Amino acid sequence: MAWVAEARQGQARAGWLHTAHGTVPTPTFMPVGTKATVKAMTADAVRATGAGVVLGNTYHLMLRPGAERVAALGGLHKVMDWPGPILTDSGGFQVMSLGALRKLDEDGVTFRSHIDGSPHRLTPESSTAIQHDLDADITMAFDECPALPAPKAVLEASMERSMRWAARSRKAFKARPGYGQFGIVQGGTDRELRLRSIKALVAIGFEGYAIGGLAVGEPQAEMFATLDYTAPALPEDKPRYLMGVGTPDDMLGAVMRGVDMFDCVMPSRAGRTARAYTERGALNLRNARFKDDPRPLSPYEPSPLNRYSRAYLHHLFRTDEILGPMLLTWHNLAYYQRLMRLIRAHVVAGDLEGFAAFLRAQWALGDWGRAEWDGRPDELRF
Amino acid sequence: MAWVAEARQGQARAGWLHTAHGTVPTPTFMPVGTKATVKAMTADAVRATGAGVVLGNTYHLMLRPGAERVAALGGLHKVMDWPGPILTDSGGFQVMSLGALRKLDEDGVTFRSHIDGSPHRLTPESSTAIQHDLDADITMAFDECPALPAPKAVLEASMERSMRWAARSRKAFKARPGYGQFGIVQGGTDRELRLRSIKALVAIGFEGYAIGGLAVGEPQAEMFATLDYTAPALPEDKPRYLMGVGTPDDMLGAVMRGVDMFDCVMPSRAGRTARAYTERGALNLRNARFKDDPRPLSPYEPSPLNRYSRAYLHHLFRTDEILGPMLLTWHNLAYYQRLMRLIRAHVVAGDLEGFAAFLRAQWALGDWGRAEWDGRPDELRF
Repeated sequence: MAWVAEARQGQARAGWLHTAHGTVPTPTFMPVGTKATVKAMTADAVRATGAGVVLGNTYHLMLRPGAERVAALGGLHKVMDWPGPILTDSGGFQVMSLGALRKLDEDGVTFRSHIDGSPHRLTPESSTAIQHDLDADITMAFDECPALPAPKAVLEASMERSMRWAARSRKAFKARPGYGQFGIVQGGTDRELRLRSIKALVAIGFEGYAIGGLAVGEPQAEMFATLDYTAPALPEDKPRYLMGVGTPDDMLGAVMRGVDMFDCVMPSRAGRTARAYTERGALNLRNARFKDDPRPLSPYEPSPLNRYSRAYLHHLFRTDEILGPMLLTWHNLAYYQRLMRLIRAHVVAGDLEGFAAFLRAQWALGDWGRAEWDGRPDELRF
Repeated sequence: MAWVAEARQGQARAGWLHTAHGTVPTPTFMPVGTKATVKAMTADAVRATGAGVVLGNTYHLMLRPGAERVAALGGLHKVMDWPGPILTDSGGFQVMSLGALRKLDEDGVTFRSHIDGSPHRLTPESSTAIQHDLDADITMAFDECPALPAPKAVLEASMERSMRWAARSRKAFKARPGYGQFGIVQGGTDRELRLRSIKALVAIGFEGYAIGGLAVGEPQAEMFATLDYTAPALPEDKPRYLMGVGTPDDMLGAVMRGVDMFDCVMPSRAGRTARAYTERGALNLRNARFKDDPRPLSPYEPSPLNRYSRAYLHHLFRTDEILGPMLLTWHNLAYYQRLMRLIRAHVVAGDLEGFAAFLRAQWALGDWGRAEWDGRPDELRF
């Protein structure tokens, strides 16, 4: 696995991520396929939105269908019909979220399945082995992610354990051409801890670096402030992945601070709850004002999605038809990919600052008025 | 609208149905798109299975989104992105099923919406006008469908009212090139009533004739016995539609008795409950024996559906992922269309009897064994 820069503007980077299952332009948004499916989408349709990498979740997949079963069936790519690269998380974050169902020790985490209460254990070694069985192009180091805010002593002890786990994860990882493993920077919103974490990870050496422990409820300004000193401290020649982020505005700000990769359930989850992301901000399709609106969601909607009127989408959600979540998930993922392609193009063109100002101004304007829509200049289309 | 025969074998007919929105080979199975969507499918995907006509339900569509709204949005074809022909039912059957919520009189039916209890009324005239607003290629006459079994006097009174309503429906229908209206034969399982009903409808004159009041819980043998005298009494040069039918075996038997058109929620509903129709009968994908089965559902599965293993489908249903219903609905509709294409080809070839025996023998065999699957002759593929 390798990441190659194509262009830089300020901290922002446009590059190419080469993996065993293909090359992906960065910055890139990775749709989340928790249980071996991006919810309400065929893999074909995900691909058609322009997605390069999809995510799988170790915690969910180890419970069902089971990593050995996935391996016997030919690996996660074959099982879920996704021929492109796959990134799997380590299970650490999700196991931590189990609360009373899990017990942490220096060696790893013992937990009970949220499905049937059966006992399981994850360690840096077993998490890495599971991700190997799943055939992940990008394996994540097993880490601990404390809730914010937390006292520095808690953040420090947790970060240091994560770094010991990172070293064990690295030792357990089987290097193969086109495959790679990312270490995860921890340390909360503490600059000194973040920089120590980076130093520890770089000493171990990974194919890429993730920024963990953000997007856990803190304000955007705090996340950006943390990125301001974290991202530039990471190796210049490796991909950088901000875990669990985010809104279009979050991603734009993070790219401008040097991040290359994102994942988030937001566009797919929003799609299932009638929320559509557009160039003019988010629309709630359950709103009665869409009842008779013959327009597609956006003048930029790619065919074949622009065949559907807002009125029809409103109807589908009002009648609880499965096609509603199907179409709106599709729309949101297509919007996220369109946004990342454009941001990348403007990094390459060297005018990202201007484009960012344009994007933010458009988001702030709110939905297109009917007159404005009908009179829209063609050059606004992309 | 016109129906043209291409070939006949015994009572079975292969033909072409010409409509304002395209020509469809018959016999044909029409997927049900109750609320302006075939559940869990895009219209594109329905089209790709080979479906020619889809069905819309007047009762559901008049309540939501409303027929006038559909008309203002450009008609049902445009709203649901289905460019092919659409058949709408009259609302009669569904209003009758409301039980205590409806009140029947000679002029029509007053009923309360099952959604919000609001009062509504359907008459032959209003049902026909609603179907006109929806832009249905095939409008159904408004009729009453009594539950079976029923005393002859009840069947007779109901049939005679339906015939008076058929005459009023016809009078309300606006003839346009490519559009047509079907009368509905009633009379339960009583031969004399069925023949009187046909006589009355033919005297009125329709572009096609439907056989109603069957598939309401009676044994298959009784349905077939009714078809044996009903279908041959219908005009030879008009299409014949058996409403609400059915299983693959029901449809095969009905084609052999002279039926050209079918609709049923079975393949789509089954798809949402993990039931898959195959050349070897139905499979329940929730069954644990599919947990590690790497095969597609059937060796005849059309690409791209054969990319998915039974193990993956089992996993999707076990984890309640939306993709499970999506893929299995797709599979079932594709199987139904494949079956109808083959039945039609064998009518044209003149060997339907032999093919029917082959189909029934295959259904009875049950799922393919692994050895049998691996050694299957290529000529079995279609």
